[in-house]
Amino acid sequence: MSALIKTWSGPVDTAWVDYNGHLRDAFYLLIFSYASDGLMDLIGLDDAGRKATGHTFYALETHLNYLLEVKAGVPVEVRTQILALDKKRVDVYHTLHVHESDTVLAANEQMLINIDSSGPKSTPFAPQVESRLRALFEPHRSLARPAFAGRAIAMPI
Amino acid sequence: MSALIKTWSGPVDTAWVDYNGHLRDAFYLLIFSYASDGLMDLIGLDDAGRKATGHTFYALETHLNYLLEVKAGVPVEVRTQILALDKKRVDVYHTLHVHESDTVLAANEQMLINIDSSGPKSTPFAPQVESRLRALFEPHRSLARPAFAGRAIAMPI
Repeated sequence: MSALIKTWSGPVDTAWVDYNGHLRDAFYLLIFSYASDGLMDLIGLDDAGRKATGHTFYALETHLNYLLEVKAGVPVEVRTQILALDKKRVDVYHTLHVHESDTVLAANEQMLINIDSSGPKSTPFAPQVESRLRALFEPHRSLARPAFAGRAIAMPI
Repeated sequence: MSALIKTWSGPVDTAWVDYNGHLRDAFYLLIFSYASDGLMDLIGLDDAGRKATGHTFYALETHLNYLLEVKAGVPVEVRTQILALDKKRVDVYHTLHVHESDTVLAANEQMLINIDSSGPKSTPFAPQVESRLRALFEPHRSLARPAFAGRAIAMPI
Protein backbone atom coordinates (compact mmCIF):
# COMPACT_ATOMS: atom_id res chain seq x y z
CA MET A 1 0.00 0.00 0.00
CA SER A 2 2.64 2.45 1.07
CA ALA A 3 4.46 2.29 -2.28
CA LEU A 4 1.46 3.88 -3.97
CA ILE A 5 1.60 7.62 -4.55
CA LYS A 6 -1.20 9.83 -3.25
CA THR A 7 -1.73 12.15 -6.22
CA TRP A 8 -4.98 13.97 -5.38
CA SER A 9 -7.34 14.50 -2.47
CA GLY A 10 -10.37 16.68 -1.89
CA PRO A 11 -14.14 16.63 -1.53
CA VAL A 12 -16.53 15.64 -4.35
CA ASP A 13 -17.76 18.97 -5.73
CA THR A 14 -21.54 19.44 -5.93
CA ALA A 15 -21.08 20.65 -9.55
CA TRP A 16 -19.82 17.14 -10.43
CA VAL A 17 -23.08 15.40 -9.45
CA ASP A 18 -25.67 14.49 -12.11
CA TYR A 19 -29.42 13.74 -12.26
CA ASN A 20 -28.72 10.37 -10.62
CA GLY A 21 -27.57 12.23 -7.49
CA HIS A 22 -24.02 10.92 -7.71
CA LEU A 23 -20.65 11.73 -9.24
CA ARG A 24 -21.09 11.80 -13.06
CA ASP A 25 -18.86 9.42 -15.09
CA ALA A 26 -16.89 12.29 -16.64
CA PHE A 27 -16.11 13.82 -13.25
CA TYR A 28 -14.55 10.62 -11.95
CA LEU A 29 -12.18 11.18 -14.87
CA LEU A 30 -11.72 14.85 -13.94
CA ILE A 31 -10.53 13.71 -10.49
CA PHE A 32 -8.18 11.18 -12.16
CA SER A 33 -7.02 13.89 -14.58
CA TYR A 34 -6.13 16.07 -11.58
CA ALA A 35 -4.30 13.03 -10.15
CA SER A 36 -2.20 12.83 -13.33
CA ASP A 37 -1.45 16.55 -12.84
CA GLY A 38 -0.42 15.63 -9.28
CA LEU A 39 1.98 13.03 -10.66
CA MET A 40 3.37 15.60 -13.12
CA ASP A 41 3.98 18.00 -10.21
CA LEU A 42 6.01 15.28 -8.45
CA ILE A 43 8.28 14.65 -11.45
CA GLY A 44 9.05 18.26 -12.30
CA LEU A 45 6.30 18.91 -14.85
CA ASP A 46 4.35 21.43 -12.82
CA ASP A 47 3.67 24.78 -14.48
CA ALA A 48 7.26 26.03 -13.96
CA GLY A 49 8.70 22.70 -15.16
CA ARG A 50 6.52 22.70 -18.28
CA LYS A 51 7.77 26.22 -19.08
CA ALA A 52 11.43 25.30 -18.42
CA THR A 53 11.43 22.08 -20.46
CA GLY A 54 8.87 23.03 -23.10
CA HIS A 55 7.38 19.58 -22.39
CA THR A 56 3.98 18.42 -21.20
CA PHE A 57 1.96 15.19 -21.10
CA TYR A 58 -0.97 14.31 -23.34
CA ALA A 59 -3.35 11.41 -22.63
CA LEU A 60 -3.44 8.89 -25.49
CA GLU A 61 -5.92 6.43 -24.06
CA THR A 62 -7.87 5.93 -20.85
CA HIS A 63 -9.96 3.12 -19.35
CA LEU A 64 -12.28 3.56 -16.40
CA ASN A 65 -14.14 1.02 -14.27
CA TYR A 66 -16.92 2.42 -12.08
CA LEU A 67 -17.33 0.23 -8.99
CA LEU A 68 -19.28 2.26 -6.43
CA GLU A 69 -21.37 5.43 -6.38
CA VAL A 70 -19.95 8.56 -4.74
CA LYS A 71 -22.08 11.42 -3.41
CA ALA A 72 -21.35 15.15 -3.21
CA GLY A 73 -19.14 16.34 -0.37
CA VAL A 74 -17.45 12.99 0.30
CA PRO A 75 -13.70 13.43 0.94
CA VAL A 76 -11.88 11.27 -1.61
CA GLU A 77 -8.30 10.58 -2.61
CA VAL A 78 -6.46 9.01 -5.53
CA ARG A 79 -3.59 6.51 -5.19
CA THR A 80 -1.36 5.91 -8.17
CA GLN A 81 0.74 2.99 -9.36
CA ILE A 82 3.11 3.21 -12.33
CA LEU A 83 2.56 0.08 -14.44
CA ALA A 84 5.11 0.63 -17.19
CA LEU A 85 7.50 3.21 -18.55
CA ASP A 86 9.51 3.66 -21.73
CA LYS A 87 11.48 6.63 -23.10
CA LYS A 88 8.40 8.79 -23.67
CA ARG A 89 5.33 6.95 -22.36
CA VAL A 90 4.07 6.20 -18.88
CA ASP A 91 1.22 3.78 -18.14
CA VAL A 92 -0.41 4.85 -14.87
CA TYR A 93 -3.10 3.21 -12.76
CA HIS A 94 -5.20 5.35 -10.44
CA THR A 95 -7.70 4.18 -7.82
CA LEU A 96 -10.29 6.38 -6.13
CA HIS A 97 -11.01 5.93 -2.43
CA VAL A 98 -12.91 7.60 0.35
CA HIS A 99 -10.21 9.35 2.42
CA GLU A 100 -8.08 6.71 4.20
CA SER A 101 -10.29 3.81 3.09
CA ASP A 102 -8.89 0.91 1.06
CA THR A 103 -12.18 0.24 -0.74
CA VAL A 104 -11.80 1.05 -4.44
CA LEU A 105 -14.61 3.27 -5.78
CA ALA A 106 -13.25 3.39 -9.33
CA ALA A 107 -10.11 2.41 -11.21
CA ASN A 108 -8.56 4.28 -14.14
CA GLU A 109 -5.66 3.30 -16.37
CA GLN A 110 -4.12 6.08 -18.49
CA MET A 111 -1.44 5.93 -21.16
CA LEU A 112 0.34 9.29 -21.10
CA ILE A 113 2.91 10.50 -23.61
CA ASN A 114 5.56 13.18 -23.27
CA ILE A 115 5.05 16.05 -25.72
CA ASP A 116 7.30 18.85 -26.97
CA SER A 117 4.74 21.66 -26.90
CA SER A 118 6.51 23.52 -29.74
CA GLY A 119 5.28 20.85 -32.16
CA PRO A 120 3.20 19.57 -30.55
CA LYS A 121 4.97 16.25 -31.10
CA SER A 122 5.99 13.34 -28.94
CA THR A 123 9.55 13.41 -27.61
CA PRO A 124 11.61 11.54 -24.98
CA PHE A 125 11.26 12.66 -21.36
CA ALA A 126 13.67 15.37 -20.20
CA PRO A 127 16.50 13.60 -18.25
CA GLN A 128 15.46 14.99 -14.85
CA VAL A 129 11.84 14.00 -15.48
CA GLU A 130 12.82 10.49 -16.55
CA SER A 131 15.02 10.00 -13.48
CA ARG A 132 12.19 11.04 -11.14
CA LEU A 133 9.75 8.76 -12.96
CA ARG A 134 12.20 5.84 -12.69
CA ALA A 135 12.65 6.51 -8.95
CA LEU A 136 8.87 6.40 -8.44
CA PHE A 137 8.50 3.33 -10.68
CA GLU A 138 11.23 1.26 -8.98
CA PRO A 139 9.21 0.27 -5.85
CA HIS A 140 6.17 -0.38 -8.05
CA ARG A 141 7.89 -3.11 -10.07
CA SER A 142 7.26 -5.67 -7.33
CA LEU A 143 3.58 -4.77 -6.83
CA ALA A 144 0.86 -7.10 -8.08
CA ARG A 145 -0.75 -6.18 -11.39
CA PRO A 146 -3.97 -4.45 -10.32
CA ALA A 147 -7.45 -5.86 -10.94
CA PHE A 148 -8.59 -3.47 -13.65
CA ALA A 149 -5.37 -3.00 -15.63
CA GLY A 150 -5.37 -3.88 -19.33
CA ARG A 151 -9.14 -4.36 -19.46
CA ALA A 152 -11.30 -4.34 -22.58
CA ILE A 153 -15.05 -3.76 -22.66
CA ALA A 154 -17.17 -6.76 -23.67
CA MET A 155 -20.79 -7.78 -23.26
CA PRO A 156 -20.97 -10.71 -20.77
CA ILE A 157 -22.10 -13.93 -22.48
CA MET B 1 -22.69 6.74 -42.03
CA SER B 2 -26.38 7.58 -42.02
CA ALA B 3 -27.23 4.72 -39.66
CA LEU B 4 -25.24 6.39 -36.89
CA ILE B 5 -27.20 8.46 -34.39
CA LYS B 6 -26.22 12.09 -33.79
CA THR B 7 -26.47 12.26 -29.99
CA TRP B 8 -24.85 15.59 -29.12
CA SER B 9 -23.64 18.75 -30.82
CA GLY B 10 -22.32 22.07 -29.57
CA PRO B 11 -19.19 24.17 -29.25
CA VAL B 12 -16.19 23.23 -27.07
CA ASP B 13 -16.67 25.30 -23.90
CA THR B 14 -13.71 27.47 -22.84
CA ALA B 15 -14.10 26.04 -19.30
CA TRP B 16 -13.17 22.61 -20.70
CA VAL B 17 -9.71 23.67 -21.90
CA ASP B 18 -6.62 22.97 -19.78
CA TYR B 19 -3.08 24.34 -19.43
CA ASN B 20 -2.19 22.65 -22.74
CA GLY B 21 -4.65 25.00 -24.48
CA HIS B 22 -6.90 22.17 -25.64
CA LEU B 23 -9.88 20.13 -24.50
CA ARG B 24 -8.91 18.32 -21.26
CA ASP B 25 -9.19 14.48 -21.27
CA ALA B 26 -12.07 14.50 -18.76
CA PHE B 27 -14.09 16.96 -20.84
CA TYR B 28 -13.97 14.76 -23.92
CA LEU B 29 -15.73 12.30 -21.63
CA LEU B 30 -18.19 14.97 -20.46
CA ILE B 31 -19.18 15.49 -24.12
CA PHE B 32 -19.55 11.71 -24.54
CA SER B 33 -21.53 11.57 -21.27
CA TYR B 34 -23.91 14.19 -22.69
CA ALA B 35 -24.10 12.02 -25.84
CA SER B 36 -25.22 9.06 -23.71
CA ASP B 37 -27.86 11.37 -22.20
CA GLY B 38 -28.86 12.20 -25.79
CA LEU B 39 -29.28 8.49 -26.50
CA MET B 40 -31.36 8.11 -23.31
CA ASP B 41 -33.62 10.97 -24.50
CA LEU B 42 -34.20 9.08 -27.78
CA ILE B 43 -35.27 5.86 -26.06
CA GLY B 44 -37.64 7.36 -23.51
CA LEU B 45 -35.24 7.81 -20.61
CA ASP B 46 -35.27 11.59 -20.55
CA ASP B 47 -36.14 13.24 -17.23
CA ALA B 48 -39.88 12.48 -17.61
CA GLY B 49 -39.15 8.88 -18.68
CA ARG B 50 -36.82 8.31 -15.75
CA LYS B 51 -39.55 9.53 -13.38
CA ALA B 52 -42.25 7.40 -15.08
CA THR B 53 -40.24 4.16 -15.15
CA GLY B 54 -38.11 4.67 -12.04
CA HIS B 55 -35.21 3.57 -14.24
CA THR B 56 -31.96 5.22 -15.28
CA PHE B 57 -28.60 4.19 -16.76
CA TYR B 58 -25.30 3.90 -14.91
CA ALA B 59 -21.93 3.63 -16.67
CA LEU B 60 -20.06 0.45 -15.68
CA GLU B 61 -16.95 0.90 -17.77
CA THR B 62 -15.59 3.34 -20.34
CA HIS B 63 -12.64 3.41 -22.76
CA LEU B 64 -11.44 6.50 -24.53
CA ASN B 65 -8.91 6.96 -27.35
CA TYR B 66 -7.70 10.52 -27.92
CA LEU B 67 -6.75 10.99 -31.56
CA LEU B 68 -6.61 14.72 -32.22
CA GLU B 69 -6.51 17.91 -30.16
CA VAL B 70 -9.59 20.13 -30.03
CA LYS B 71 -9.53 23.84 -29.20
CA ALA B 72 -12.11 26.03 -27.45
CA GLY B 73 -15.06 27.23 -29.51
CA VAL B 74 -14.85 24.52 -32.18
CA PRO B 75 -18.33 23.21 -33.10
CA VAL B 76 -18.31 19.46 -32.50
CA GLU B 77 -20.77 16.60 -32.67
CA VAL B 78 -21.00 13.02 -31.46
CA ARG B 79 -22.16 10.08 -33.60
CA THR B 80 -23.22 6.90 -31.86
CA GLN B 81 -23.26 3.23 -32.84
CA ILE B 82 -24.84 0.53 -30.70
CA LEU B 83 -22.40 -2.39 -30.59
CA ALA B 84 -24.35 -4.86 -28.47
CA LEU B 85 -27.46 -5.14 -26.36
CA ASP B 86 -28.82 -7.63 -23.84
CA LYS B 87 -31.79 -7.45 -21.44
CA LYS B 88 -30.24 -4.75 -19.27
CA ARG B 89 -26.94 -3.65 -20.81
CA VAL B 90 -26.08 -1.58 -23.86
CA ASP B 91 -22.57 -1.30 -25.29
CA VAL B 92 -22.30 2.04 -27.11
CA TYR B 93 -19.55 3.51 -29.27
CA HIS B 94 -19.31 7.27 -29.65
CA THR B 95 -17.05 9.22 -32.00
CA LEU B 96 -16.31 12.95 -31.74
CA HIS B 97 -16.13 15.05 -34.91
CA VAL B 98 -15.87 18.65 -35.93
CA HIS B 99 -19.39 19.53 -37.16
CA GLU B 100 -20.11 17.66 -40.41
CA SER B 101 -16.55 16.30 -40.71
CA ASP B 102 -15.90 12.57 -40.87
CA THR B 103 -12.47 12.83 -39.19
CA VAL B 104 -12.58 11.15 -35.79
CA LEU B 105 -11.15 13.33 -33.00
CA ALA B 106 -11.75 10.77 -30.26
CA ALA B 107 -13.54 7.45 -29.77
CA ASN B 108 -15.31 6.29 -26.63
CA GLU B 109 -16.86 2.91 -25.82
CA GLN B 110 -19.22 2.80 -22.85
CA MET B 111 -20.94 -0.15 -21.19
CA LEU B 112 -24.18 1.17 -19.70
CA ILE B 113 -26.54 -0.75 -17.43
CA ASN B 114 -30.21 -0.17 -16.71
CA ILE B 115 -30.86 0.63 -13.04
CA ASP B 116 -33.97 0.62 -10.87
CA SER B 117 -33.31 3.83 -8.95
CA SER B 118 -35.26 2.60 -5.92
CA GLY B 119 -32.41 0.15 -5.17
CA PRO B 120 -30.30 1.27 -6.84
CA LYS B 121 -29.96 -2.14 -8.50
CA SER B 122 -29.67 -3.41 -12.06
CA THR B 123 -32.91 -4.48 -13.71
CA PRO B 124 -34.13 -5.32 -17.24
CA PHE B 125 -35.03 -2.42 -19.54
CA ALA B 126 -38.66 -1.28 -19.42
CA PRO B 127 -40.44 -2.83 -22.47
CA GLN B 128 -40.88 0.46 -24.32
CA VAL B 129 -37.22 1.36 -23.73
CA GLU B 130 -36.04 -2.04 -24.94
CA SER B 131 -38.15 -1.82 -28.11
CA ARG B 132 -36.73 1.61 -28.96
CA LEU B 133 -33.18 0.39 -28.29
CA ARG B 134 -33.77 -2.65 -30.53
CA ALA B 135 -35.12 -0.41 -33.30
CA LEU B 136 -31.99 1.77 -33.13
CA PHE B 137 -29.71 -1.29 -32.92
CA GLU B 138 -31.21 -3.14 -35.91
CA PRO B 139 -29.54 -1.02 -38.67
CA HIS B 140 -26.27 -1.08 -36.69
CA ARG B 141 -25.95 -4.87 -36.82
CA SER B 142 -24.57 -4.74 -40.36
CA LEU B 143 -22.04 -1.95 -39.65
CA ALA B 144 -18.34 -2.77 -39.43
CA ARG B 145 -16.90 -3.14 -35.93
CA PRO B 146 -15.28 0.25 -35.31
CA ALA B 147 -11.54 0.78 -34.99
CA PHE B 148 -11.34 1.48 -31.26
CA ALA B 149 -13.96 -0.97 -29.93
CA GLY B 150 -12.85 -3.56 -27.37
CA ARG B 151 -9.43 -2.00 -26.89
CA ALA B 152 -7.08 -2.58 -23.95
CA ILE B 153 -4.23 -0.29 -22.94
CA ALA B 154 -0.73 -1.73 -23.38
CA MET B 155 2.76 -0.30 -23.68
CA PRO B 156 4.01 -0.76 -27.28
CA ILE B 157 6.89 -3.25 -27.45
